[in-house]
Amino acid sequence: MRSIHAFRYSHWSHVSTPRKRPRQQRSRETVAAIEEAAAQLFDRYGYAATTTNKIAERAGVSIGTLYQYFPNKDALLWSLAVQHLEATAAEVTAALARAAAEEPPLPRLLHDLVHRVAALHTTRPTLHRLLFDQAPRTPDLVARFRATELALATSLAAHLRRLGVARSDPEAAALLAVQGVQAQIHGVMLTPPDGRDRDTLLEAIVTQWHRALIEW
Amino acid sequence: MRSIHAFRYSHWSHVSTPRKRPRQQRSRETVAAIEEAAAQLFDRYGYAATTTNKIAERAGVSIGTLYQYFPNKDALLWSLAVQHLEATAAEVTAALARAAAEEPPLPRLLHDLVHRVAALHTTRPTLHRLLFDQAPRTPDLVARFRATELALATSLAAHLRRLGVARSDPEAAALLAVQGVQAQIHGVMLTPPDGRDRDTLLEAIVTQWHRALIEW
Repeated sequence: MRSIHAFRYSHWSHVSTPRKRPRQQRSRETVAAIEEAAAQLFDRYGYAATTTNKIAERAGVSIGTLYQYFPNKDALLWSLAVQHLEATAAEVTAALARAAAEEPPLPRLLHDLVHRVAALHTTRPTLHRLLFDQAPRTPDLVARFRATELALATSLAAHLRRLGVARSDPEAAALLAVQGVQAQIHGVMLTPPDGRDRDTLLEAIVTQWHRALIEW
Repeated sequence: MRSIHAFRYSHWSHVSTPRKRPRQQRSRETVAAIEEAAAQLFDRYGYAATTTNKIAERAGVSIGTLYQYFPNKDALLWSLAVQHLEATAAEVTAALARAAAEEPPLPRLLHDLVHRVAALHTTRPTLHRLLFDQAPRTPDLVARFRATELALATSLAAHLRRLGVARSDPEAAALLAVQGVQAQIHGVMLTPPDGRDRDTLLEAIVTQWHRALIEW
């Protein structure tokens, strides 16, 4: 029988008045400084030990300024999760756009995509574990995640068509690849099994998808 | 610029005194009745509209009894997520154990596994979306999830060895398959892309993994 702990997890509850949005250049810089400070502190000290006061202090802003943009610490974690999703999507989109010009063969395309996404998780590993495992999965964040998967799959499908692979259904093949690869990369980067190094596993992902797609 | 909403998501905070654990047969039945009532109401009315009072009423227990076992609604959602994880693991484990006796070829083994897991998501689709998208991902739940993936990969690796496929590294192949397939099944069941039916996509998962593993 599992034990049942008394945690409280009250979900998001959107308030009727959204916090101030940073429209001006200076406001955007303030928000960026707060987010960067939060990312540094979460990565170094973990989520529980990092307070909004410490974040404001490191960002060089008053706690009142922080609360103008972020009602609480969870809102900051959520915001960093959106940033990470956007950064990953931008990285993959850029790689696919470059590949549209360079027309690399399938193994090189897959190698490039897998290693670029994996690299995004190495600079701040603790933060990325936190984002993946604990960031609030609001309906909005989940919807963004699914929309990103679909957009990336559409771009990848164009490459599969160019390469003449997965001919029977390049869109479905691309979507399953995007969904599968992201779960595999997260598994490899967050919890590599004992006695394997990450690069070997990343190469196994590349090879596996090459085989799967070339014979689709 | 994304908008920042003022949600509150205070994460789990384990209290020092865990709630009562159901040691007796009658207590276990009470807990099961409460969980079943919650599953029914979450599936029918959604999370926000379902109160602990309504859950207690449907389960035929007092609200005080419910709170003996579940400190709040989130604890119930968490508990249902653990149940779903355990049910999925049990289903796959049973299928792999039967296969150890029956020794099916790889396509049949994969077909059986993929469709059994997918079927677990069809009976209460709203509830399963809720569990996947919104259930509190406590460190404990994440650890259980990773441990389950590893255990299933170990069982699957034994089949790959029996079948003589993925010879260069059956354990890594099995782990990547388990991680990839679960993400793909969730994608297909929760957000099938426009104009595709689920069965076609599930078959594509089976075919893709057959190709990937047979040539590993």
